[in-house]
Amino acid sequence: MALREPLARLLRARPLSRPLTALPPRRRAHSVALVGAPLSRGQKRGGVDHGPATLRAAGLVERLAGLGCQVHDFGDLNFTQVPNDELYNNLVLYPRSVGLATQMLADAVSRAVAAGHRCVTLGGDHSLALGSVSGHARQHPHLGVIWVDAHADINTPLTTQSGSLHGQPLSFLLRELQDKVPQLPGFSWLKPCLSASDIVYIGLRDLDPAEHYILKNFDIQYFSMRDIDHLGIRKVMERTFERLMGRRQRPIHLSFDIDAFDPSLAPATGTPVLGGLTYREGMYITEEIHSTGMLSAVDMVEVNPLLGASQEAVKATARLAVDVIATCFGQTREGAHTTFDELPTPSSPDESDSEEQVRI
Amino acid sequence: MALREPLARLLRARPLSRPLTALPPRRRAHSVALVGAPLSRGQKRGGVDHGPATLRAAGLVERLAGLGCQVHDFGDLNFTQVPNDELYNNLVLYPRSVGLATQMLADAVSRAVAAGHRCVTLGGDHSLALGSVSGHARQHPHLGVIWVDAHADINTPLTTQSGSLHGQPLSFLLRELQDKVPQLPGFSWLKPCLSASDIVYIGLRDLDPAEHYILKNFDIQYFSMRDIDHLGIRKVMERTFERLMGRRQRPIHLSFDIDAFDPSLAPATGTPVLGGLTYREGMYITEEIHSTGMLSAVDMVEVNPLLGASQEAVKATARLAVDVIATCFGQTREGAHTTFDELPTPSSPDESDSEEQVRI
Amino acid sequence: MALREPLARLLRARPLSRPLTALPPRRRAHSVALVGAPLSRGQKRGGVDHGPATLRAAGLVERLAGLGCQVHDFGDLNFTQVPNDELYNNLVLYPRSVGLATQMLADAVSRAVAAGHRCVTLGGDHSLALGSVSGHARQHPHLGVIWVDAHADINTPLTTQSGSLHGQPLSFLLRELQDKVPQLPGFSWLKPCLSASDIVYIGLRDLDPAEHYILKNFDIQYFSMRDIDHLGIRKVMERTFERLMGRRQRPIHLSFDIDAFDPSLAPATGTPVLGGLTYREGMYITEEIHSTGMLSAVDMVEVNPLLGASQEAVKATARLAVDVIATCFGQTREGAHTTFDELPTPSSPDESDSEEQVRI
Repeated sequence: MALREPLARLLRARPLSRPLTALPPRRRAHSVALVGAPLSRGQKRGGVDHGPATLRAAGLVERLAGLGCQVHDFGDLNFTQVPNDELYNNLVLYPRSVGLATQMLADAVSRAVAAGHRCVTLGGDHSLALGSVSGHARQHPHLGVIWVDAHADINTPLTTQSGSLHGQPLSFLLRELQDKVPQLPGFSWLKPCLSASDIVYIGLRDLDPAEHYILKNFDIQYFSMRDIDHLGIRKVMERTFERLMGRRQRPIHLSFDIDAFDPSLAPATGTPVLGGLTYREGMYITEEIHSTGMLSAVDMVEVNPLLGASQEAVKATARLAVDVIATCFGQTREGAHTTFDELPTPSSPDESDSEEQVRI
Repeated sequence: MALREPLARLLRARPLSRPLTALPPRRRAHSVALVGAPLSRGQKRGGVDHGPATLRAAGLVERLAGLGCQVHDFGDLNFTQVPNDELYNNLVLYPRSVGLATQMLADAVSRAVAAGHRCVTLGGDHSLALGSVSGHARQHPHLGVIWVDAHADINTPLTTQSGSLHGQPLSFLLRELQDKVPQLPGFSWLKPCLSASDIVYIGLRDLDPAEHYILKNFDIQYFSMRDIDHLGIRKVMERTFERLMGRRQRPIHLSFDIDAFDPSLAPATGTPVLGGLTYREGMYITEEIHSTGMLSAVDMVEVNPLLGASQEAVKATARLAVDVIATCFGQTREGAHTTFDELPTPSSPDESDSEEQVRI
Repeated sequence: MALREPLARLLRARPLSRPLTALPPRRRAHSVALVGAPLSRGQKRGGVDHGPATLRAAGLVERLAGLGCQVHDFGDLNFTQVPNDELYNNLVLYPRSVGLATQMLADAVSRAVAAGHRCVTLGGDHSLALGSVSGHARQHPHLGVIWVDAHADINTPLTTQSGSLHGQPLSFLLRELQDKVPQLPGFSWLKPCLSASDIVYIGLRDLDPAEHYILKNFDIQYFSMRDIDHLGIRKVMERTFERLMGRRQRPIHLSFDIDAFDPSLAPATGTPVLGGLTYREGMYITEEIHSTGMLSAVDMVEVNPLLGASQEAVKATARLAVDVIATCFGQTREGAHTTFDELPTPSSPDESDSEEQVRI
């Protein structure tokens, strides 16, 4: 529970919105834990298990360190495939392997958060949120989830058409759906920890009918790409925070699927859908989340280095993912300064001969 | 007049705007007629006559069927070039061939609409609107036209600089311009059927001086790309419907030139102009038009498979055109469900051994 | 002072905003001077000295002439490298060469403006603004500067990290910073001519800490990409003009770094930064500036034909730069007409046999 106190202080101190002209808050040195989760059994395409390595190779650790974060990289969890992991209900793939891996991840995330870190889970496919959200919720039962994704990932094992668990994690996590979700082999450790009002989606544009039924019937807030076109990203973020933190501040879990971005920006992913977020919208979302001071855990999922049409496409996708994470922890387009209390002054009208060092 | 009654019912029943949180209206099974209009004599570049085949090869029929539409594909009209089709006024190209083809198209569209179909004309170049709008107006004299295009296509035969008829169709269709438009050989069948207040343009960015003069002098409503930047696409659509349907609902004819999109999205077209619609703006426009419930005919024009720099460029252009048409008939980014009345429930706490089929 | 009178007249006559439906003002025949400034010593990469030739090869002169401008191309200034141009303070590069070149440019711009031209300086790197703004200010001491750029270019010689002068010009030009800026060899001719309230930035997204300190401490107005996402480009331009011309109209100096655009649009430049202006935002900015009637000088900088990945990338960058300049002088997406007082009318109901010429 180490983070409780700082968060409680943040609760009282940080306003949600701040005037454009105000000085940005001084950067705090975040302590950031990186947990690699090379999970790929939640879907069918090879390569997404190389996601964590791809994100690190794109300079993630250096970027966070450059922002003043203390980075603790815990390496990759060692997921093993459970033998004889047969289909559930003749349809759902690898339940025992996904169940075991996400159980391990839940423990790791819980420990990292308990130790006072902000925890970044590097995927891997989006079924890993079963673990990251569960582990996070053990420490912060009242967390709110911002789920940025082209897809709703809320099919139940009885409505899924693909059988892939990366399209289903939220159905297991949601209390209201528990009588609709069967117990899967390997999932006995998992208890639902979210209510429908704890989630806000951003970026949806490819909903299955059953998912649409669930979102509407359980009054889950979502901002589809149409809503972003209709309202603009500024109002979408205002309403997101109003929904999640209108009554009281709470720790935020950001679960970010790289396929929320337009495929022209993030081609190296398994289920791209046309008409996604722009780079600028993605940065705006994470700048706003950072500004709340309440971000406590992040998932970055579905970067698949085997799916880009070229090495450049993979690099662009990974760079984008790193920009998302860096912005979560203080990278900003409007600039910031902490080291400057005053500008250096020339020691003489012409100091061209001086050897004075530049002081920055 | 088969469509009259349903449209009249829609008139009374469907509000123009609906709150974001409301359930979407249940999908209706549209009856959609496809009419191929491989017209290329309205301009100078080869290949646009392959447009209908390109759109079908991109899966148009399957997409519409997947949305629940009853699709009636009437194949391609058999346009023949009229022999000795000399320039009109030493400038205007192929008047007799374009006149005859659009006369045939007018008859086909009129019949399709009279039979109760929503009619989709697959171009071909934009001079085909001479026929599609005329034929549509025979059944629905009070229709309104939404013309989505980079160009205004409203030169007269006396102001055109290129001589191509695809830059002139609206001058022939507009009542107010009749004393400015000479009778062309092959055009004796054509009677103007629109007033200046029946048209709204969206996406203009390349206007000839004479066209600008006409738009301003006859008070024709247009939203240039600058206006979209200024107002945002949401307000543009609100004002479009206010203009066309502020007083009463009316059938809508959507005439969509693929060059309204940015050339980076729709490269395979004859007269691309930088700075066009985004994919998302295009979808927003057609989602909004679909939501009115009043869409009665669509033209999709100027897809030219010989002009893409690569096969991928042609495919992207055709896929985009199919997305436009599909969205006109109910494809949506915010999702929809009709088949679900309730979610399937597990028959036992653990039904992993059950053989129950997934019910969707 | 030749321009004073016309500008004074414009002051009284031209409202800042105009209703969407109004006829655009008739085009005036601008007299435009082109001054080539092949300056590359303000940074480290070769090729930006070919910028002026690249812009001319992209058809700049013809485009301006087509808009009705009287174009006076004064060719390229002949910049020479000063021998033994050693680092200032062991860090700042080529001070004497940049100082001499910008002194020549200041004289050229001052003469062009005094002769009644609007002056377009073709870069070259952005350190040239030392000369163009200084020269412009000799004729119009009360000018306002709109600086469109990914970077703030306001480091002092004591805060710069790169040592390149193209990242520093505004620190030399700003009165408030003079006690922080040492006298550089070659810069004795230069006197600060701007106050902090005379500048508005648009497009910033990569600020050094010292630059952020300066912008905040001296209350310099800037619209970062985040602000554009937050406010929209329309409000950004409204606030820009309110800031610069809220109290009284004044001549505008537009200093446009092509790297303000997204790298996908302007790849051929030295310091690209993700997440830049769209094509449409760039056109909107310059359309709005043109509409004020107060634009008096333009810099177009940092087009570097040696840095594009392909010939097509260089052409796209140059075409974009030409579009920016053309829009500054009246190119418009909503169209315009001056030559039309009325439409040509057919001499008979069917004039297909007539030989009457089209009158446009």
